[in-house]
Amino acid sequence: MRTAVCDQLGIQYPIFGFTPSEHVAAAISRVGGLGVLGCVRFNDASELDAALDYLDANTEGRPYGVDIVMPAKVPDEGTAVDLSALIPQTHRDFVQQTLHKLGVPPLPADGDPGREGVLGWLHSVARSHVDVALKHPIKLIANALGSPPEDVIDLAHAAGVPVAALAGKAEHALRHVENGVDVIVAQGTEAGGHTGEISTIVLTPEIVDAVGERAHVLAAGGIGSGRQIAAALSLGAAGVWMGSYWLTTSEYQLAGPADAVKQALVAAHSDQTVRSRVYSGKPARLLRTRWTDAWDEPGAPAPLPMPLQNLLVNEAHQRIMASGDPEVVAMPVGQIVGRMNAVRPVAELVAELVAEFDETLARLDKLR
Amino acid sequence: MRTAVCDQLGIQYPIFGFTPSEHVAAAISRVGGLGVLGCVRFNDASELDAALDYLDANTEGRPYGVDIVMPAKVPDEGTAVDLSALIPQTHRDFVQQTLHKLGVPPLPADGDPGREGVLGWLHSVARSHVDVALKHPIKLIANALGSPPEDVIDLAHAAGVPVAALAGKAEHALRHVENGVDVIVAQGTEAGGHTGEISTIVLTPEIVDAVGERAHVLAAGGIGSGRQIAAALSLGAAGVWMGSYWLTTSEYQLAGPADAVKQALVAAHSDQTVRSRVYSGKPARLLRTRWTDAWDEPGAPAPLPMPLQNLLVNEAHQRIMASGDPEVVAMPVGQIVGRMNAVRPVAELVAELVAEFDETLARLDKLR
Repeated sequence: MRTAVCDQLGIQYPIFGFTPSEHVAAAISRVGGLGVLGCVRFNDASELDAALDYLDANTEGRPYGVDIVMPAKVPDEGTAVDLSALIPQTHRDFVQQTLHKLGVPPLPADGDPGREGVLGWLHSVARSHVDVALKHPIKLIANALGSPPEDVIDLAHAAGVPVAALAGKAEHALRHVENGVDVIVAQGTEAGGHTGEISTIVLTPEIVDAVGERAHVLAAGGIGSGRQIAAALSLGAAGVWMGSYWLTTSEYQLAGPADAVKQALVAAHSDQTVRSRVYSGKPARLLRTRWTDAWDEPGAPAPLPMPLQNLLVNEAHQRIMASGDPEVVAMPVGQIVGRMNAVRPVAELVAELVAEFDETLARLDKLR
Repeated sequence: MRTAVCDQLGIQYPIFGFTPSEHVAAAISRVGGLGVLGCVRFNDASELDAALDYLDANTEGRPYGVDIVMPAKVPDEGTAVDLSALIPQTHRDFVQQTLHKLGVPPLPADGDPGREGVLGWLHSVARSHVDVALKHPIKLIANALGSPPEDVIDLAHAAGVPVAALAGKAEHALRHVENGVDVIVAQGTEAGGHTGEISTIVLTPEIVDAVGERAHVLAAGGIGSGRQIAAALSLGAAGVWMGSYWLTTSEYQLAGPADAVKQALVAAHSDQTVRSRVYSGKPARLLRTRWTDAWDEPGAPAPLPMPLQNLLVNEAHQRIMASGDPEVVAMPVGQIVGRMNAVRPVAELVAELVAEFDETLARLDKLR
């Protein structure tokens, strides 16, 4: 499945594996894909620096990338404390009442740090991620929320690093290309995390037709088998961008001590996701659980805008994670969750993707 | 693109074209696909009989099929008049007020018949469709709402006619196969009309894996190019089921005198659809217009269950159609509407699908 984007980035397979885990990212890069480390969880740039040191030491010199959350419009800046003042008490009360109702205990008194929320959403933090990442031999810098700021694109290009951006509509992809973005991730509504409404099979060829030769297009959303990779390349994509699929790998260890998240994901079917603003304030596809259902009940408040919603629910997310109840996890994941039915190592998954892709092409060849 | 289902049905291409127009259906069958006539609009079985006579005379002996709306559970029977008594006055008032606000005039005093609503939703009418259809040389009988009743499946099989059923989840497909259904239409959420929440790229391989060799699987939703057909076959489908795509063909003449529907469809982008219960009472993807927006406004009533909602809005649909305002049409269509940008004959569209499919396979072959 070697395509033009493989040649440009020096990778064997056009499988871009987005993951918040440096262990998963390294494993993906080692077996010929491109591991892309999601940076939003690193509130302090030094933590990101350490994770990238790990990647440098564990990718056998193979390429990897980073994904930084940079809102297209620079939001009002502020510390966690003064942003916190913007959260209505009714919302705080709803969260506390819901956690009580769902039987989620408080955090232990000696709780760990990080309670200030995920600051990676903040512009200043995201920019510190860029500065740190560019000191490492990254081969791709992606932005989950649209075109990166112009000077970030310039910095990346000056360092010889291609820039990727996610797009849920063809018009967004066109804007990215005009801004200098090199790789468009056409993200269908079935994807996990922040996502639009147009499905992968419709969106991918629309974006391919819109951007032409000006950018590589990767299909994202609903990819978790070699058949689906073949479908993505049929649609004109140069590769695939996969995120959810790595959450049930053996290497993924961010799901908390009780592994409630992995249990919930392994058990879930493809109809057990919901597109909702409760995670971050922007529409994102999540595992449907008792937590997301609570926000859909009559009387539940409307989620707050980004970044307030994440600050609002951050402690709840930590409590939910610590509680270890698979029915109450708060987890972004795509509809491909229905195909994630066992915990397996990255190398095994990638080998299977490649083998099924080859089988699919052989099958199609008989239709010519 | 010859697959096993082509051999079984005696067609050249595994392109199943669902359409309420006998003119479009005939044109699809003539060029090597399978035209499938949607029967729900025929309130009287004799009208369907005449349409099938047209197909018999205009398909050059090539196969065609029918699609009948048979609810899985037999609903309470009733005439249009006594069902009508179940519609709350508040709903009637909302419809009248909305039409007034949108500037949709009343029907002329000498209005045409058919004001009793679309009765094809009713079980007794659907059964009369089956009886009429089986007197013609149909090659497929499909049910838009799940497995047909057991005796309908038996009747069809006794006549040597395979049975198709739509499925939005793998568990529904499995049930269909256990009921004796021969062809499963895996309908993704991006499809027009009644549709579930799982996208085509996720749903198709799930259903293929679930039913195995027991049924042919067609992919539906988001198919409107040769690349998308190649994607569907990559996913394991034996063919594609396309509905929306024929609404902007030259042969389609059911859109009213002013052609407001075609104008609206040709202009629409892929993000201009909405999945809503306002058309029939069950979730269906529609063109997003001022009419559908009105039902999303605060204070709008929740749509009624099937078949009441269609009875409620039937006169409104007729008034909207007669008004000729492209901004207020009420029309089921899938996200593929973004690719329907000109009014063209069926033969030209099918030739283009086939040519692009061949190009796509040639392109993929270079990746082997």
